[in-house]
Amino acid sequence: MSTIVFRGNDRIKTLSPQDRGLMYGDGLFETLRASRGDLPWWPAHWRRLQSGAGRLGLALPDEGMIHAAAQELLDARPQVLKIILTRGESGRGYLPVAGPATCILSTYPLPPRMAEPLRLHWCTTPIAQQPALAGMKHLNRLENVLARRECADTGHDEGLMRDGDGHVVCATAANVFVHAGGQWHTPDLSQCGIAGIARGKLLAMREDVRIGPLTRAQVENADAVFLCNAVRGIMEVRRIGTVPINGHAALDALQQRFLDAHPFFADE
Amino acid sequence: MSTIVFRGNDRIKTLSPQDRGLMYGDGLFETLRASRGDLPWWPAHWRRLQSGAGRLGLALPDEGMIHAAAQELLDARPQVLKIILTRGESGRGYLPVAGPATCILSTYPLPPRMAEPLRLHWCTTPIAQQPALAGMKHLNRLENVLARRECADTGHDEGLMRDGDGHVVCATAANVFVHAGGQWHTPDLSQCGIAGIARGKLLAMREDVRIGPLTRAQVENADAVFLCNAVRGIMEVRRIGTVPINGHAALDALQQRFLDAHPFFADE
Repeated sequence: MSTIVFRGNDRIKTLSPQDRGLMYGDGLFETLRASRGDLPWWPAHWRRLQSGAGRLGLALPDEGMIHAAAQELLDARPQVLKIILTRGESGRGYLPVAGPATCILSTYPLPPRMAEPLRLHWCTTPIAQQPALAGMKHLNRLENVLARRECADTGHDEGLMRDGDGHVVCATAANVFVHAGGQWHTPDLSQCGIAGIARGKLLAMREDVRIGPLTRAQVENADAVFLCNAVRGIMEVRRIGTVPINGHAALDALQQRFLDAHPFFADE
Repeated sequence: MSTIVFRGNDRIKTLSPQDRGLMYGDGLFETLRASRGDLPWWPAHWRRLQSGAGRLGLALPDEGMIHAAAQELLDARPQVLKIILTRGESGRGYLPVAGPATCILSTYPLPPRMAEPLRLHWCTTPIAQQPALAGMKHLNRLENVLARRECADTGHDEGLMRDGDGHVVCATAANVFVHAGGQWHTPDLSQCGIAGIARGKLLAMREDVRIGPLTRAQVENADAVFLCNAVRGIMEVRRIGTVPINGHAALDALQQRFLDAHPFFADE
């Protein structure tokens, strides 16, 4: 794991304990899959970072500078680049300050490929409805941490999170798609959840996906379910709690089309 | 501002960019008012930290070690001690790891006394209902940051935050009490908000405070309103939006009783 840290346009060696990313989770992040030293989905990730920075009022660093630093960190191996952008340092107190942002780039090995379709847990940790933050990949992720711990504690690969009304929103680190009634469905994210880049690519590819509320029963009765994110691509689901999910030719077709469009997800 | 950083029982010089406090807001904090080199409310703050660490599954450092480090940082001036406790470093991924916690102690000057009773804003940023995190002083504080910015943008001292049902929960950095119908009221915090230490001291002092839902109309029609926190104590409210709050002898009496019990809030 290698890291470059910027304070504004300057490279710095150490992170301040007064960084607002640490004090308040006052920032955003992106997790990109790299392929042969390149970042094929960079434009979409940077657009989301830009949109989140606009909503939070964070200073966005120069795209070229950050992209060049990312290239320095990458080598030819398949790997993951993580970018954290925070509001930078300040004194105590919630009031945002205008100052240089902190931007941290780190590389990580690509996680091992899932050997089998996923077994999911129904997380009991709810995901809170907060329209002011919905869709953003911000640094306030305690809900995800608690929900992910539930999955590990119960021996599951991942888990589905529901909002206070019981609607299915997402997995702990992925978006969810469901095939039912001859159609693909994915939850609306206007109240909570992260608008994933892989989800966005799939919605652009299949304009007939229905975006709307999904109940637990609809998911359990689906003929195919998958999770997706920008690191692992499409991940088929085989079981949720005690309920088996059979799978469907529609998923095989979608997966093939996704891999044809984004072949770097086949890198080993 | 001086700082001591612990990784487990070791003092370290620099904070890792892979600290989960930064990556996910995976941690807690406490803000204590110091008086003459002492921390009068230490036991209550430590109990809340311990309770939050239990709920999140964080390793709690030795109380004596942290208290001794705090004493090193303090001098005789009135000041604020902030403690941040995080789950420590890990690789990428939400799954909590078992490892040494990070504990950061910093001192800050006491903020200037409010010259006049407060003028409050009705924040439009809602506070999300999340029972899994309610009451805890955790590091996921983007809601408070956005709400605090609204107060500054509109020229107010502080602001009241409401949940998705429109119930008043708290100010951006304080709890709220309201006097109406001859009785003190304060919101229930089982769904969201921080269970403030000053709030707890007041509830222990006045067992007749009614804890329950408060509407905007109830607050606007109250005959006295105050905010409280462990740094500033009781802060009288004079106006909320365009609505004046008259004040009431019950507030003067409560404030006197509070200062008699906790005289360090009169330190200059």
